[in-house]
Amino acid sequence: MMTVGILGGGQLARMLALAGAPMGLRFMVLDPSADACAGQVAPLMVGEYGDESALAEFASQVDVVTFDFENVPARSAQWLAQRLPVFPNPQALALAQDRLLEKTLFRELGIEVPPFADIASRAQLEQAVAALGTPCILKTRRLGYDGKGQFRINAPQDLEAAWTALGPSVEKTGLILEGFVRFQREISVIAVRGRDGEFQTWPLTENWHVDGVLSASLSPVAVEGALAEQARLAAHKIAERLDYVGVFALELFCCDGRLLANEMAPRVHNSGHWTIEGAEASQFENHIRAVVGLPLGSTRARGQACMLNWLGALPDARGVLGQPGGHWHDYGKEPREGRKVGHATFRADTTLGLVDALHAAGEQLDRHAQVAPVIARLRG
Amino acid sequence: MMTVGILGGGQLARMLALAGAPMGLRFMVLDPSADACAGQVAPLMVGEYGDESALAEFASQVDVVTFDFENVPARSAQWLAQRLPVFPNPQALALAQDRLLEKTLFRELGIEVPPFADIASRAQLEQAVAALGTPCILKTRRLGYDGKGQFRINAPQDLEAAWTALGPSVEKTGLILEGFVRFQREISVIAVRGRDGEFQTWPLTENWHVDGVLSASLSPVAVEGALAEQARLAAHKIAERLDYVGVFALELFCCDGRLLANEMAPRVHNSGHWTIEGAEASQFENHIRAVVGLPLGSTRARGQACMLNWLGALPDARGVLGQPGGHWHDYGKEPREGRKVGHATFRADTTLGLVDALHAAGEQLDRHAQVAPVIARLRG
Ligand SMILES: Nc1ncnc2c1ncn2[C@@H]1O[C@H](COP(=O)(O)OP(=O)(O)OP(=O)(O)O)[C@@H](O)[C@H]1O
Ligand SMILES: Nc1ncnc2c1ncn2[C@@H]1O[C@H](COP(=O)(O)OP(=O)(O)OP(=O)(O)O)[C@@H](O)[C@H]1O
Repeated sequence: MMTVGILGGGQLARMLALAGAPMGLRFMVLDPSADACAGQVAPLMVGEYGDESALAEFASQVDVVTFDFENVPARSAQWLAQRLPVFPNPQALALAQDRLLEKTLFRELGIEVPPFADIASRAQLEQAVAALGTPCILKTRRLGYDGKGQFRINAPQDLEAAWTALGPSVEKTGLILEGFVRFQREISVIAVRGRDGEFQTWPLTENWHVDGVLSASLSPVAVEGALAEQARLAAHKIAERLDYVGVFALELFCCDGRLLANEMAPRVHNSGHWTIEGAEASQFENHIRAVVGLPLGSTRARGQACMLNWLGALPDARGVLGQPGGHWHDYGKEPREGRKVGHATFRADTTLGLVDALHAAGEQLDRHAQVAPVIARLRG
Repeated sequence: MMTVGILGGGQLARMLALAGAPMGLRFMVLDPSADACAGQVAPLMVGEYGDESALAEFASQVDVVTFDFENVPARSAQWLAQRLPVFPNPQALALAQDRLLEKTLFRELGIEVPPFADIASRAQLEQAVAALGTPCILKTRRLGYDGKGQFRINAPQDLEAAWTALGPSVEKTGLILEGFVRFQREISVIAVRGRDGEFQTWPLTENWHVDGVLSASLSPVAVEGALAEQARLAAHKIAERLDYVGVFALELFCCDGRLLANEMAPRVHNSGHWTIEGAEASQFENHIRAVVGLPLGSTRARGQACMLNWLGALPDARGVLGQPGGHWHDYGKEPREGRKVGHATFRADTTLGLVDALHAAGEQLDRHAQVAPVIARLRG
């Protein structure tokens, strides 16, 4: 019986463990918090990611290591990788933790990115804002998530406030300035690569963010011309270059018929949650298959699926479960402002069926604004 | 946070807990064995079903009770039902535990059954064999499963051996004699009824047994004329009469264009495992939804699915996971002669796709005999 160790015990670890358990796999989760929600479905070891004695104890109980959380110290990942298989490999993880390194890699691989500049000082920020123009976005290179660690500079006079907000982080996390992309759509491609190099992507997902946090996803979606193939190819190049094993997400902006890569997440991703019900094999199942060296499952879609994120608190499950094709995910977390506490997925064989279910749920849950852009897209 | 208590900690409890966890439900399993396989995915309390102090401790930790195992003492179910909600209700459970009571009920409800007779003595057995003719089958009324507690009487001279084998059980389990049905096909209908009376069935499943144990299931399957509607109606009548809440299976013989009811299982059933991948909501998810009072999920099939049971020991998972639409279930049990240790489900959007996957798996796993009848049916 194989035991998979997961660094980080949030909802991603929880869904990984639930996807691997049917295949007879055991799990062990390491998380600094005693009430990490994955602990409700798998054994939880409480410890700091940087604590070598915790890592040693963890390593002694698992056969292979993976992540629910990319901001594990690179040194911890390396320490583990000297002792047992770690997927994705620590170099890939370290690269994907850093917006500057990943954008540099994308560019090297011929994947278009928004204009960007490394910012090490206030003087550099001034130069870069002048060069890139406004609006632009100042971001921490590392440790940002859900739109945190970002400051939008709409006009040169915002530079002062941006530096006040993020300048103090420059030593710890580094900073990057990015040109603001007036994108028409945000999409992501969820990809998986096996230990033997087998590579698959799920159909493209369109994503809607509110205040920098994912609100809704829809898949499959059609995009113009060759963009789908371009997105798949970009993910493949990245996976090959990094010798990546497991699932990752590549977030892209669609802008005037071009694709610009925003960032990659070296793990299962919120925009791939729909695959649990909407694809033959989910991102969670395939991540586990990849990590333990099993053949990958089919990434084909089954009908069309829309995921809605629940932030802060859960609405009434009946509003979802009462719709045909409505599925409910409660992560078992305490409600807290802005916290991802669950999601719903609506799956249907027809576009019309999906519109109906979303419309009904939007009514019953009083979530019109959340479903509206998805319904608009489905109605074409 | 609601906790569902499950009496019995086998693979059914395991799959129930895995189906309920995404919805944020907690589980607690009671089983006499410390290595009951559901204990790998949910907290396990070790105790005898008949031990009132164990039941009291169990009851204090759960909000609602259900079963993975129907042969829990009726008194234990009643004891619990006086203290908290128990689904299905103990009367339904007691009835479905007893082949004589269930066949009597079926007949009362106008559901055709094979000829049968209650057997309390050797003399009654002789009379009944004379009346029903041979071949016929002597079965224990209670506590039989997977073809155990059955003796086939091919000719009157087998009566002696039948009585030697099962006569000693007559006090403990009762006995029933059934006419032997020369059926063309065995089918089952998996049904679910909610607390509010909402009733659903999954598409019909065809089943193949080897030595009295389920070997393969296929769904959806077409049956002649109005038989599908008849099967659904029979399940509905039973559910209403018993005020049944949760999932149950009704096993039927198809014989010369008629349906004969064999038995009901008052729980999720091996012939419904395909619903995990092959239906919008699985039997496990809907059983849990019913038991906790949530709306039922859609029972519609997604394409066509075939389940293969693994008895004794598991074959190589790669032979399944390497096929498109191949899904692997390992119950985490020690291998043991005849034991149900796992299953595989193959799902495909087309009949041809399913044939191909089954054929390839049959080859790679050297399981031609197991897949052959299913492929023959699919090829029509
Ligand atoms: N250069 C940009 N131009 C326009 N919009 C942007 C840009 N960068 C980020 N955004 C917007 O902010 C959102 C969050 O940004 P980003 O993905 O960089 O942050 P994050 O904190 O890593 O988010 P997540 O955790 O969701 O991946 C993006 O999805 C997009 O809507
Ligand atoms: N009256 C009958 N006529 C012909 N075959 C029968 C009859 N009763 C049982 N069988 C065969 O034996 C198999 C097992 O019988 P039955 O379902 O009664 O036993 P069980 O031990 O309760 O099985 P399970 O645990 O699979 O439900 C049936 O599926 C059928 O193939």
